Amino acid sequence: MQVISLFLPEIRELLDARDFGALKRLLSQINPVDLAGGWDSFTPPEQAILFRLLPRRMATQLFEELDPRQQQALLTHVREVDIQELLSDLDPSETSQIARQLPPRLVARLFALMQKESAGQVEKMLTFPPESVGSLMKTRFVQLKPGMTARQALHHAQGSTRLSRIDQTYLDSLFVTDELGGLLGHVPLKELLVSPPDMQVADLMQGVPFRLTPEQDQEEAAGVFRKYGLGSAPVVAAQDKLVGVLVVRDVLEVIGEEDTEDIQKLGGSEALDEPYFEISFLRMVKKRAGWLCVLFLGEMLTATAMAYFEAEIARAVVLALFIPLIISSGGNSGSQAATIIVRALALGEVGLTEWWRVMRRELASGLALGALLGALGFLRISLWSQVSPLYGPHYLLVALTVGLALVLIVMWGTLSGSLLPILLRRLGLDPAVVSAPFVATLVDVTGLIIYFTVAAIILHGTLL
Amino acid sequence: MQVISLFLPEIRELLDARDFGALKRLLSQINPVDLAGGWDSFTPPEQAILFRLLPRRMATQLFEELDPRQQQALLTHVREVDIQELLSDLDPSETSQIARQLPPRLVARLFALMQKESAGQVEKMLTFPPESVGSLMKTRFVQLKPGMTARQALHHAQGSTRLSRIDQTYLDSLFVTDELGGLLGHVPLKELLVSPPDMQVADLMQGVPFRLTPEQDQEEAAGVFRKYGLGSAPVVAAQDKLVGVLVVRDVLEVIGEEDTEDIQKLGGSEALDEPYFEISFLRMVKKRAGWLCVLFLGEMLTATAMAYFEAEIARAVVLALFIPLIISSGGNSGSQAATIIVRALALGEVGLTEWWRVMRRELASGLALGALLGALGFLRISLWSQVSPLYGPHYLLVALTVGLALVLIVMWGTLSGSLLPILLRRLGLDPAVVSAPFVATLVDVTGLIIYFTVAAIILHGTLL
Repeated sequence: MQVISLFLPEIRELLDARDFGALKRLLSQINPVDLAGGWDSFTPPEQAILFRLLPRRMATQLFEELDPRQQQALLTHVREVDIQELLSDLDPSETSQIARQLPPRLVARLFALMQKESAGQVEKMLTFPPESVGSLMKTRFVQLKPGMTARQALHHAQGSTRLSRIDQTYLDSLFVTDELGGLLGHVPLKELLVSPPDMQVADLMQGVPFRLTPEQDQEEAAGVFRKYGLGSAPVVAAQDKLVGVLVVRDVLEVIGEEDTEDIQKLGGSEALDEPYFEISFLRMVKKRAGWLCVLFLGEMLTATAMAYFEAEIARAVVLALFIPLIISSGGNSGSQAATIIVRALALGEVGLTEWWRVMRRELASGLALGALLGALGFLRISLWSQVSPLYGPHYLLVALTVGLALVLIVMWGTLSGSLLPILLRRLGLDPAVVSAPFVATLVDVTGLIIYFTVAAIILHGTLL
Repeated sequence: MQVISLFLPEIRELLDARDFGALKRLLSQINPVDLAGGWDSFTPPEQAILFRLLPRRMATQLFEELDPRQQQALLTHVREVDIQELLSDLDPSETSQIARQLPPRLVARLFALMQKESAGQVEKMLTFPPESVGSLMKTRFVQLKPGMTARQALHHAQGSTRLSRIDQTYLDSLFVTDELGGLLGHVPLKELLVSPPDMQVADLMQGVPFRLTPEQDQEEAAGVFRKYGLGSAPVVAAQDKLVGVLVVRDVLEVIGEEDTEDIQKLGGSEALDEPYFEISFLRMVKKRAGWLCVLFLGEMLTATAMAYFEAEIARAVVLALFIPLIISSGGNSGSQAATIIVRALALGEVGLTEWWRVMRRELASGLALGALLGALGFLRISLWSQVSPLYGPHYLLVALTVGLALVLIVMWGTLSGSLLPILLRRLGLDPAVVSAPFVATLVDVTGLIIYFTVAAIILHGTLL
C-alpha cells in the first residue's frame, strides 16, 4: 500500500498518454502484490490494459492477489485469450479457490475456456470443503517408481516438469508410489541430486512421517506443520493413494488467517475475514455489533443483580464505590486466563484430556493473583482511611470485605476463564469464542453476587 | 505429548531390561519432536543412552527440540564424540541459537569441540541481536557465477553439497554473485534442472525481489514473507554482499511465536515465552501479576471517581444499578476496537500515516454501535418500567440518561481503543501492550465521569 503509491502517478501518466511501451517496462519492475494493493485506483478498462501489459508470470501472480470483486471485474473485461493463458498458468488448487468466490455465470465461463484435463481437476477440488486440505493442496507433483535409478528419476522429474509451467509442479520432494499409486515414500530433490546416478530409488527413499487427507481441516494441518517444522506433507485418499501435496508456503497463509481469526474473536468480535480498510463499513459494523449486543444483553443481568442488592447499597453507599474496581479485577484476570488457554489449545500445548492439570494450575494461580490484588485493595482502603473519613468508622471491615471479595472473584475469574475454552472445545465449538469480553461479562455478573454475599457476612450488624 | 505416552512404557521396559538392540529399533520409529515431548520421563543418564541409540540425523533433530535446561543436562552427560558429531551436524545458526541459552561454562566447552571454521561462523552469528534476521538465517548456501553454464552450475551445487551434510546446505535457490560476493540474482534449483545444459547462468538468473539485512528484526522479515508469499530471501551485508539466506520454514516458527506474544499481551499478560505446562508456576504468576497489578492500580481511580459522585448515588441509588452495565459496554467496545487495530497493524494492513482514516472509520463505527446499545438500554429500562416500579416515577429520564451515556461511552471506547495502539507504535512502543483489559480500564474510569455528567444534566431538578 505504501510502496505502490510511489508508482501510481507515473502509471496514471503513462496510461493517459497511452505510452504502452514505457508502461510495460515500468510494470515489470513492480511487485504484483504491491500492484494489487493499488488496483482500485484504476477503472476496469484500465485494469484490463495493465493486466495485458504485465509479463505473463506476473499477471498470474497479480490475479491471485486480487479480491473476488476485482477478479470478477477483470474477467469480464479482458479478452478470452488472456483468460485462457491465465487458466493454463494457475494451479488447479488456485483456480478452484478463485472459482469458489465467483458468481455461477463466471464460473461457467471459466470452465468453458479451461482445458479438459484441468477442468476435471478443478471440478474434483471443488468437491472438498472450503477450509479443507483438499482445497489447498497442489495437485501437480512427480511420481517415481522404486525400481528407477537416480539418473532415471531425475530425467523423469525433468520431463514431467517441462510439460507444464515450472512453478506449477511441486518438485522439492519426489514421491515414490507403487503400481496403484499408493504412497511408498519420498526422495528430496536435493538428495537425488547428490546421489550416485546408478543408485536405486528404493534405496534412496525415505519414509513419510506425516500423511494428511483431503477432508482434513486446514487449521489442523497447519498445527502439524508448525509442530514438526515440515516443508511439505503428502495428501492421500483411500488405500493410501497419493492425491496431492500440501506446501509450507500455502500453510503460512493459512496460519496468518487463523491467527487473525482467533485474535479478533478473542477481542470480542466476529472474524472480519477481510483487511481492515477493505471490508465495507456496514459489514464491519455488523460483525462487531453481534457480539457487543450479546454481551450487552448478558451485562444487563448486572443491573438485575444490582437491583437485588439495592437496599444494601442504599444503606451503605460506600459499598457501591468499589463495584467497578471489583468486577473489573475479576474480568481482567478472567480475560487473561482465557486468552492464555485459548492460545495454548490452538498451539496444541494443552490437550483436552488435561483439563484437570489446567484446573489445578489455574486454581493456584488464581489464589496467588487474588491474594495479591486483595492485599492491595485492603491496604488502599485502610491506609487512605488514616487521612480521610471517606470510608466511615467501619473502614477496616470495609477493607476486609473488599479484600476478601477480590481474592474470591479473581480465583473465580481465573478458573472460569481457563476452563470455559476447554469445555467449548470439548463440545466441538471454537474455543476462541470465549473472548476476553465474554469472560469479563460472565465474571461481572457473578462477581457482584460474590461481593454482596461477602459484604452481608462481614458487615452484618454494623453497616448492613 | 499425546502420541509419546503410547511409547513411554515400552521405552521404559527396554531401558530397564537393557535391551538396547530392540530399543534402537523402537526409537527409530518415533518422531524426534514427540520424543522430546516425553524427555522429562527419563533420568539424565537414561537420556544420554537414548540419545546415543538414536540414528544420527534424529539425534540432531531431537537436540534442537529440547529446551535449554534439557540440552544442558544432555551436554554434561554424553561423550565428547557425540557432542562433536552433533556440532558438525547442526547448522551454525542453530548452534548459535543453542549457545545463546547455555551457561558460559558449556558454551566454552562447545567451542572447544567445534571445528575451527564452524566456530568462526557461530561466533559471528552470536554478534547479531537475538531477535534479528542474522541470528536466524542459514549460512551455508551455494554461490554461482554468471559465466557458468547450467551444467557447470549443477555440478558446482552438487560438489558444495557433498562436502557438508545434505540438509545443512540451502539448495532450493542458488545465488549468483560477482567476484566480490555481491548478490546479482538467483536461479531456482528447479529451473536449473529443466534448462538446456549449455545455457548460461547469466541468462537463467532472476532478479531478487527482496533483500534482508542481518540486523533487521525477525518480525519485520516475517511480515515480508507473509505479505509476498516468499519461500526464501537472501540476507546481505554492506556492498550487497551475500551473507545468508532466510528460509520460510524458520520464519513459520517466528510467526507462531510473534502471534503468541501478541495474543498474550492483548489478553493482558506479559508474553509467557514458554509453553503453558513448561513454564514454572512462579514465573507464570509473575508474568501475569505485573499487568493485573497495574490495571488494578488504574482501576482504583474508579473508586476515586465514584467517591466524587457519592452524594449523587446516595440521592439516586437507581443510578448505581447501571454502573456495571455502562462501564463494561464501554470496555467491551474499546477492547474490540483495540484488538482489531493491533492485528491490522501487525499485518501491515494499516500504516501509521493512516490514523486519520482509522479515526474517521472508528468514529462512525462507534456512533453506530453506541446508538445500537443505547437504544437497547433505553428500551430495556422503559419497557421494564411498564411492569415494575423498580426504576421509580422518573424512569423515562433514567432510561434517557443510560441510553445517551451508552452512545457517548461506546463512541469514546471505540475511538480510544483504536487510536491508542497507533499512538504507541508511533512512540516506538509495541502496540500489543494496549491490551483489551488496558483499554477497558481506561474506559471504566472515564466512562463513570461521562455517565454522571450526563446524569447531572438530564436528571437535574428531578432525581438529582
